[in-house]
Amino acid sequence: MAAPGQHPRPSSAPDEPPASALSPPPLPSFPSFPPLVDQHCHGVLRAGPGRTSFEGYLTEAHVPSGPDGGSDGGRGSCAPFSYFDTQLGFAVRRWCAPVLGLEPHCRPEAYLERRAELGTGEVTGRLLRAGGISAFLVDTGLPGPLLTPGELAETSAGEAHEIVRLERLAERAADTARDTHAFLGEVAEGIREAARTARGFKSVVAYRCGLDVEPSPPGASRVHASADRWLSTRAAGGRLSDPVLERHLLWAAVRTGLPLQLHTGFGDPDLRLDHCDPLLLTDFIRATAPYGTPLVLLHCYPYHRGAGYLAAVFPHVYADFGLTLSHTGARAHAVLAELLELTPFGKLLFSTDAYGLPELYLVGAQLFREAMTRLTSEWVGRGAWSRSDAESVTAMIAGGTARRLYGL
Amino acid sequence: MAAPGQHPRPSSAPDEPPASALSPPPLPSFPSFPPLVDQHCHGVLRAGPGRTSFEGYLTEAHVPSGPDGGSDGGRGSCAPFSYFDTQLGFAVRRWCAPVLGLEPHCRPEAYLERRAELGTGEVTGRLLRAGGISAFLVDTGLPGPLLTPGELAETSAGEAHEIVRLERLAERAADTARDTHAFLGEVAEGIREAARTARGFKSVVAYRCGLDVEPSPPGASRVHASADRWLSTRAAGGRLSDPVLERHLLWAAVRTGLPLQLHTGFGDPDLRLDHCDPLLLTDFIRATAPYGTPLVLLHCYPYHRGAGYLAAVFPHVYADFGLTLSHTGARAHAVLAELLELTPFGKLLFSTDAYGLPELYLVGAQLFREAMTRLTSEWVGRGAWSRSDAESVTAMIAGGTARRLYGL
Amino acid sequence: MAAPGQHPRPSSAPDEPPASALSPPPLPSFPSFPPLVDQHCHGVLRAGPGRTSFEGYLTEAHVPSGPDGGSDGGRGSCAPFSYFDTQLGFAVRRWCAPVLGLEPHCRPEAYLERRAELGTGEVTGRLLRAGGISAFLVDTGLPGPLLTPGELAETSAGEAHEIVRLERLAERAADTARDTHAFLGEVAEGIREAARTARGFKSVVAYRCGLDVEPSPPGASRVHASADRWLSTRAAGGRLSDPVLERHLLWAAVRTGLPLQLHTGFGDPDLRLDHCDPLLLTDFIRATAPYGTPLVLLHCYPYHRGAGYLAAVFPHVYADFGLTLSHTGARAHAVLAELLELTPFGKLLFSTDAYGLPELYLVGAQLFREAMTRLTSEWVGRGAWSRSDAESVTAMIAGGTARRLYGL
Repeated sequence: MAAPGQHPRPSSAPDEPPASALSPPPLPSFPSFPPLVDQHCHGVLRAGPGRTSFEGYLTEAHVPSGPDGGSDGGRGSCAPFSYFDTQLGFAVRRWCAPVLGLEPHCRPEAYLERRAELGTGEVTGRLLRAGGISAFLVDTGLPGPLLTPGELAETSAGEAHEIVRLERLAERAADTARDTHAFLGEVAEGIREAARTARGFKSVVAYRCGLDVEPSPPGASRVHASADRWLSTRAAGGRLSDPVLERHLLWAAVRTGLPLQLHTGFGDPDLRLDHCDPLLLTDFIRATAPYGTPLVLLHCYPYHRGAGYLAAVFPHVYADFGLTLSHTGARAHAVLAELLELTPFGKLLFSTDAYGLPELYLVGAQLFREAMTRLTSEWVGRGAWSRSDAESVTAMIAGGTARRLYGL
Repeated sequence: MAAPGQHPRPSSAPDEPPASALSPPPLPSFPSFPPLVDQHCHGVLRAGPGRTSFEGYLTEAHVPSGPDGGSDGGRGSCAPFSYFDTQLGFAVRRWCAPVLGLEPHCRPEAYLERRAELGTGEVTGRLLRAGGISAFLVDTGLPGPLLTPGELAETSAGEAHEIVRLERLAERAADTARDTHAFLGEVAEGIREAARTARGFKSVVAYRCGLDVEPSPPGASRVHASADRWLSTRAAGGRLSDPVLERHLLWAAVRTGLPLQLHTGFGDPDLRLDHCDPLLLTDFIRATAPYGTPLVLLHCYPYHRGAGYLAAVFPHVYADFGLTLSHTGARAHAVLAELLELTPFGKLLFSTDAYGLPELYLVGAQLFREAMTRLTSEWVGRGAWSRSDAESVTAMIAGGTARRLYGL
Repeated sequence: MAAPGQHPRPSSAPDEPPASALSPPPLPSFPSFPPLVDQHCHGVLRAGPGRTSFEGYLTEAHVPSGPDGGSDGGRGSCAPFSYFDTQLGFAVRRWCAPVLGLEPHCRPEAYLERRAELGTGEVTGRLLRAGGISAFLVDTGLPGPLLTPGELAETSAGEAHEIVRLERLAERAADTARDTHAFLGEVAEGIREAARTARGFKSVVAYRCGLDVEPSPPGASRVHASADRWLSTRAAGGRLSDPVLERHLLWAAVRTGLPLQLHTGFGDPDLRLDHCDPLLLTDFIRATAPYGTPLVLLHCYPYHRGAGYLAAVFPHVYADFGLTLSHTGARAHAVLAELLELTPFGKLLFSTDAYGLPELYLVGAQLFREAMTRLTSEWVGRGAWSRSDAESVTAMIAGGTARRLYGL
């Protein structure tokens, strides 16, 4: 729960009893669950976060990152609640506290104190190894002092591979190219190089333009003119949001044949959620079908049923749930169930979208294992599925399909 | 069920046995549930409704209100079904019949007969007092012979406060102002006055223009020109639907700092539901963020997951469920569960949206208590939440957050 | 599951044990369930399908229909999964295998082998008679070597009636009419004739133009000009997609007073799902309200809650679930529950949308019976509904409302 005093507690519990007194059932473990492939995640912080900025990683909201990571003066400071008071916050206390030697559902303060006591290295190692993830596909396009894919692999005793974020690739080229011609050449070369070294591409066109993009590849002269305009007006470090350049990047990636991950659905407030319905991509999906390049729709919530439809009717479309399960916590099984309505079972992929906190890997993995186990148990129990089908589908979603798709 | 003869009944039950013979489990009571704050409701009819118009209050459809309240000749008269044959109709028979001394699920005719027998005053008093609502925030902008907030408070032995509906305030000003200048002055004074005497504002811009409004405050000259145009073409009693004037009202309310309630999601057929997706407000929400004024998204269904997202990423946004639980009845827990996916627990508010019938207060309250109890029991039972967290979150949604937000 | 080798199976089950070894509970039967009226379906194949094209009927995707029904060269051939690996595929193996004398959940290969062994006639007869459907309303507008309504009736020992597809009627008229005047005359006569012989109309305007059509009937001169343009540019067999002609057809059907079925929600990839939200029909629904002609929204998923709203507030609107239950399989009860939130109980209609395979009739019927039984048992069990109400609502949805609506 939130820090004391932020919300009235029931009068019968002024001093919350230790969680153990509540006698919840023991935490489930999933011994026979297949190892997971996290097909979309980000790095883990090298140090910290400190107590005050920890909460900022529990939300997609823009919140002040606290004295140890930023200023306290932002808008969020007036918010009279804690981001621990969310399904994700509850799930972190449930699943991660025991790994740090605490009772599940211990108070946030106790959790953060213990975390500081153990130190970043120990906490990260424990949580990652507890996650049961054997392979990570890391979108390296987010800034910050993060572990590299190699370091993540070493810490977790798994393997890690890179996914190249198209917008970051273009922004880096813009930072150094001396003119438009050089910029476009560097982008092309960057994509060629990435196709040799990475396992796929990622686009955040959802954030930059929304998903209702023109479906066709733009002509060379339009691309040149747009690049010219962007480079001449761009401030240092400026983000790419030109729709013609976005389409140019998307098509360049599609032509490589490598899987292309597309952010869809919810995220931080930089996006307009109603512009991130994956169905807005329908015409782009149609246009790219002849290439056969896999398009992987990330996150999808609350438009995940539409994503399932796209995966059902277009052979090259796949769906992922990403941060959806982590952020819906106790409801993860219900959301996963909705994804399992239309999505063909060989088209759905596990991921955590974890960023910054190692907690997010563990929570994403546990919630998926619990949700999948619960759903298939129910369906097998009432005869709707056979047990061997349930095992086979679980293996596909947990990692089988991702291994095939990314050539792991 | 519907009046006899409207639908075939199973042949085994030509004379429906008394509900008691079906041995359902005894009706649940919720003795330790915290008292509720109904943060959005309307008045209760002073008299009636009679038998034929009762059904009109069970639906958002436009139906003839019957001989005792209107004509019988409308379109709805051809509808070969009863509005009792809905989740809300079933919920009324379930929860309210016992309070009037009848078996739960008694026939509609028996219910209406008993209602008439007891009389409006007795029925209203019994149902309101059974509701367990300790405070009411009353939108006084609906017409009709309704109890005032003060009378509602007295009848229910609770407290009641006013929420001022912006469109009604402007329409009243238009009814009396002698020119545009006076109209705008009266609107400004009305909002100032309301900010002193009321606990918040309400807007039905969703009904009047849809929610895809321009986000910025309109300039004074545009406001004046729009007011001029509206006043010169307005028939007596004419509704405000000019988008510039709507934005003027919204921003005037935002500047007071008082909570602003916004209708979103379903309602009567005057609205286009697809124009009432709260995500359409995203740019307005961004524009108002610096003011910190709480924006409370009402009802939200079926876009409640999007509302939860907005509450999750914008510190000043709150979500309510209003008439959603009442109208989904046996499914109330499922819809509430979806609201509890992304909405931070300190951002969700109970309300009934009750209008006309005291039944709607009791049904809204009981369905919420039952749904919340059921969900938290399940989550505590499988270890996803701790019991003390469940109690704390329940207290927030039941009224804790509303008390803080409206300064009760 | 998919053909062997397509997906890794868990190592513990290289040779899948017979389903009987898994001891699922015996398949439920529903002896007291009322007979069903399938208010929207298509014909059954006269012969086949062969093994390779069977899967094409399990999906809305465009897939190659295999050597016995088409070419193997389409896009879908690269899809490394089987359309048996879907909720619908699992449901077919569950419900249909026992009717063919196999264990539930037998392997797809065993199922297809048995099917070929028994022959089309025997398979069709067994599956149709097991479906418990007493009346079929058949949209005869789909091509292919299909059983006629009369043959379907005979095979199933039920009754069958025709629903006339407006676009097909117009396309047939275009195939033969010598000029625009004759074309429009034939359309008018075709609709008059259908109003005498058929039980309703169906439109696929969703596929052709999307549902965001102009609400009003087009004037005669615009209709003539549009028909002129279409006929002069139309290739033989060309589809109607002109929005003015679509509106002309819709209004001609509305004026007959016969129920008009409208495809909404998901279907094959010829449509854009986001253009098939039934809420896009709101203004058309308003415009047609004075006529009282029943409008039946088909399928609706994933926009079924919006369809429920329309049925709740417009007296002439009805909702159907069509292929939604079949394609969501083990989740059918969850989707049906969502439809039962706002839809008045007398406004919801059973159908299968079955096409080609007799399996789709049985699966649609069984999933509906199971889902309805499960939901009402739960609601009666916790006192939310009475048992007699549950029986009455079940009878309405199963066929009571359809019998009244279509005059059966």
